[in-house]
Formats: sequence, C-alpha cells, structure tokens
Amino acid sequence: MRDFTWSHGQKKAARVAFDLASQRDTQAIRREVEGMLQNSKDARVVWQIEDYLYERRREHDRVFDYRYSVLIFVFAGLVRDSLLSEEELEGIGQEKVEAIRAMLSIR
Amino acid sequence: MRDFTWSHGQKKAARVAFDLASQRDTQAIRREVEGMLQNSKDARVVWQIEDYLYERRREHDRVFDYRYSVLIFVFAGLVRDSLLSEEELEGIGQEKVEAIRAMLSIR
Repeated sequence: MRDFTWSHGQKKAARVAFDLASQRDTQAIRREVEGMLQNSKDARVVWQIEDYLYERRREHDRVFDYRYSVLIFVFAGLVRDSLLSEEELEGIGQEKVEAIRAMLSIR
Repeated sequence: MRDFTWSHGQKKAARVAFDLASQRDTQAIRREVEGMLQNSKDARVVWQIEDYLYERRREHDRVFDYRYSVLIFVFAGLVRDSLLSEEELEGIGQEKVEAIRAMLSIR
C-alpha cells in the first residue's frame, strides 16, 4: 500500500476520529464493568473485573496506535468493529477513505 | 515464638474468621470501585480502577496467607487493620489470642 500524505486539516480530523473511537471503546468497557457490579452481589466480582480490565487494556493499547504509518489500518479496524463510521472519517481525505473501504471489502 | 497447635475446632474457627476478614477486605475494595465510578463521568476512570485493583489484589493475596505457620501473624495484622476484632478470634484458643494481643501491644 502506498504511503499517504496527511495535511494539517486531515491530521486534525484523524485525531478527532481517533479520540472519538477511543472514547467509545472506553465507554463500552465502563458499561461492562458497571454491568458486572450490578449483576453480582458477591464482592469477589472485583477480581473478575480486574481480569477483564487487564485484558481490555492490553487490547485497547494494542488497537489505539496513533502512528501515521499504521493509522489507515487502525481506522479500518475501528470501522470494522463499529467504533467509527466511514462518514466520521471523511475529513481524513477521500483517497484514504477509499483505501479503508477497499481493505474492508476484502474480508 | 513457639509453635501453636490447632485443634479441629480451632481450625474451623480460624477458617471462619479468615474468610470473614477476606470478605470484608474485598467488600471494601468493591465499595471503593463503586465510588470511583460514581465520582467520575469520564469513562477513562476504568484505567484508574484497573491500577487500583492491580495493587489491591497483590496486597490482598500477600495478606491472606492461610498457612498455620504464619496464621497468628496474619490474624494480628487483620486485627490491627480493623478487619477482625479480638472477639471474633475467640474460637482459635485463648493462648493464641493472647499471643496476638502481645504482638499488637508492641507497636
């Protein structure tokens, strides 16, 4: 895949989309933790929460990698996982959105 | 410190007290986690919760060591930390409760 160039405005749009997806992922984790607490009267549920958060944090840190060299793949994964819509990526440039769409059509 | 002997009944009482203290500690951790969630609208509070649980679990596992060779020291620590009262340890035998009291008077 060819290298993409990022204009100042495209970088700003990328950051907004990236942070939005990160927030959505974190919010989903929070809801899961709240659900675990609500569904258990046993205090030891905190150890299940710790296991869950440990795994989810590793996953989160692995996925949310803001390097321009990999960002197009990151965004493709976020669209696939419904953490971003293609529309929310419009600001990063038409050619990049099309590359993402091409990637997602392969699977 | 001399080795203590544990009768069957004293072992049962020790287990009950140990589990009670463990439950109280875990319950306190749960309340802390619930408080952190209640006091923060930011979903990223889950990462603070993960850090908190990681530390507290290490501490919990270190403290709650059910080997008869160390149990008297474990109980002394639990009384000091208000996770058990001396009265709740009555069943483990008068000589052990006195040893615990002696330990706690040193500090």
